Amino acid sequence: MSLRLAILGMGSVGRGIIQTISQKELGLIITAVADSRSGCIDPDGLDIPDLLERKEKTGICGDTNINAENVVLNAPYDILVEVTPTDARSGEPATSYILNALKLGRHVVTSNKGPVSLHYHALSSLAGNNGVQFRFEATVAGAIPIIQTLMHNLGGNEIISLYGVLNGTCNYILTRMAEEGLTYRQALDEARTLGYAETDPTYDVKGIDAAIKLVILANTVWKKNISLDDVDVTGIDLLTEEALRLAEQQDATIRLIGEIIPEQNIYRLCPRIIPRDHPLVVQGSLNAIIVRTDLAGDLLFVGKGAGSLETASAVIGDILFIRDKYAGGN
Amino acid sequence: MSLRLAILGMGSVGRGIIQTISQKELGLIITAVADSRSGCIDPDGLDIPDLLERKEKTGICGDTNINAENVVLNAPYDILVEVTPTDARSGEPATSYILNALKLGRHVVTSNKGPVSLHYHALSSLAGNNGVQFRFEATVAGAIPIIQTLMHNLGGNEIISLYGVLNGTCNYILTRMAEEGLTYRQALDEARTLGYAETDPTYDVKGIDAAIKLVILANTVWKKNISLDDVDVTGIDLLTEEALRLAEQQDATIRLIGEIIPEQNIYRLCPRIIPRDHPLVVQGSLNAIIVRTDLAGDLLFVGKGAGSLETASAVIGDILFIRDKYAGGN
Repeated sequence: MSLRLAILGMGSVGRGIIQTISQKELGLIITAVADSRSGCIDPDGLDIPDLLERKEKTGICGDTNINAENVVLNAPYDILVEVTPTDARSGEPATSYILNALKLGRHVVTSNKGPVSLHYHALSSLAGNNGVQFRFEATVAGAIPIIQTLMHNLGGNEIISLYGVLNGTCNYILTRMAEEGLTYRQALDEARTLGYAETDPTYDVKGIDAAIKLVILANTVWKKNISLDDVDVTGIDLLTEEALRLAEQQDATIRLIGEIIPEQNIYRLCPRIIPRDHPLVVQGSLNAIIVRTDLAGDLLFVGKGAGSLETASAVIGDILFIRDKYAGGN
Repeated sequence: MSLRLAILGMGSVGRGIIQTISQKELGLIITAVADSRSGCIDPDGLDIPDLLERKEKTGICGDTNINAENVVLNAPYDILVEVTPTDARSGEPATSYILNALKLGRHVVTSNKGPVSLHYHALSSLAGNNGVQFRFEATVAGAIPIIQTLMHNLGGNEIISLYGVLNGTCNYILTRMAEEGLTYRQALDEARTLGYAETDPTYDVKGIDAAIKLVILANTVWKKNISLDDVDVTGIDLLTEEALRLAEQQDATIRLIGEIIPEQNIYRLCPRIIPRDHPLVVQGSLNAIIVRTDLAGDLLFVGKGAGSLETASAVIGDILFIRDKYAGGN
């Protein structure tokens, strides 16, 4: 029997997930979808081409009398796939959707950094008490399955520290400043033109986005209980071209590096001068993470930090984890 | 209740696993152990310091009237941990141990490339039919959890191709030849002295070890049915210093690269000239793998390819996967 999904959010990530699920035989059907203004429900599985065409033509996915809350409370589904935009301050309305789904005994998979960075422990306990999964691979490092790797694959290890490039937009800007001699403004404008940076890029360039990812990693992998205020954050918005030039003269460059050393209570994000041949010096909008462990030694992971299909990959990985765990078989 | 382990093999990997399990609270107990000449069984859990001391002092772990086969058939255990030496040609006696354990409805975790490269499909079906797990993360790329990543974490993806440095001994030799201008012989002798190469290094330098890993990846990740004969193999034993020098003059170097492109039926291992700043140019005995996927794009993984604790990390990751899957909780 197919697992039934209810999907909240029809932005580029939501559409990427819907398209992928309709194209691959994964044993999944989509029984409900909601965007910010409408929703649709069909217990037998929605007609996907029809849904995507309607969304593209009219801007809404379904009936304006149905909203996300109705879907969560009334639709028939096994997994809630919550991919609405992140509100980092309040975590809403995503947190309420997730809470309600977990209370109803449904699994939840999210790409939303708000609920996970603000309320991980509460949501995770609720899921545990109700015998369901709460999963969030897509919240950190895009296509790199770092959460699953640290929490499961390397399960027997103590993770001693983590260093990483966790924001593709900042990495793109720094790469272009270093390679092409662009000013910060020029590189930022270019990132905007290419769609790597939002119209308001504050969230990225001031380091908030990467810092929230450090909070998520600290609270989930290490079971800490920190918030954004506990992270020592410096963005790249005040970085001068001169600083970068000086680094380059010494065969080094500057990258925005996040750092977690739990034993020393270090949760820090700042631009750092690192040798140009250092493994964290990745190009463009890539992410890169080095973890130090007691058994496995040092491990490096590099991959795309964002993008519709890359995020869909992480979300679908979580969905299939649930499918396989509850299928009982191999 | 603790999961009970029976461990076959008390070489450096076996001892690494036993030590780690005794030092960490993982919900596991060791109820039986066998080495090549003896065995010991205690349904309440073996005394580990005692066991390790006995092995170190006498060279054997227990009673010479007990052997590995007795342990498999008669000891009380939930998971067989099979870490005896690899016989790449026959796969024995490891394959028989694994078969018997699976027939008895026990999970099996192995680091042994023989059974997996020769009999994966038969062993995997038997496990599936008996509702148990057959896992083998440690057979490829040491500390990098590449099997779990490709078969599960990236589950929704088509894995289009894989390129990798899969043998640390060869990579060490090539690194030393390039960096220090050593001859092949000098570098090989150094690798032997440091314990990176066996007294008979044929298996490594002729590429057999890495080619077997390609067979394992092809048959497990892509469900192919190939054998060592299907891999186009060239080792590093005939590589001249001149070839390396020429590559270095062009800002390139030589690495032994394994390659899988299933759609084109390409399963190949050979020394390749690659730019010195290419991500697969890793130093010393590291392994490195690049996979190309349809959703997640390109991903790079780098980590230690061998070693007692690194292999233990992979084996324990598999054991904990089983623990968590059958625990039912989160």
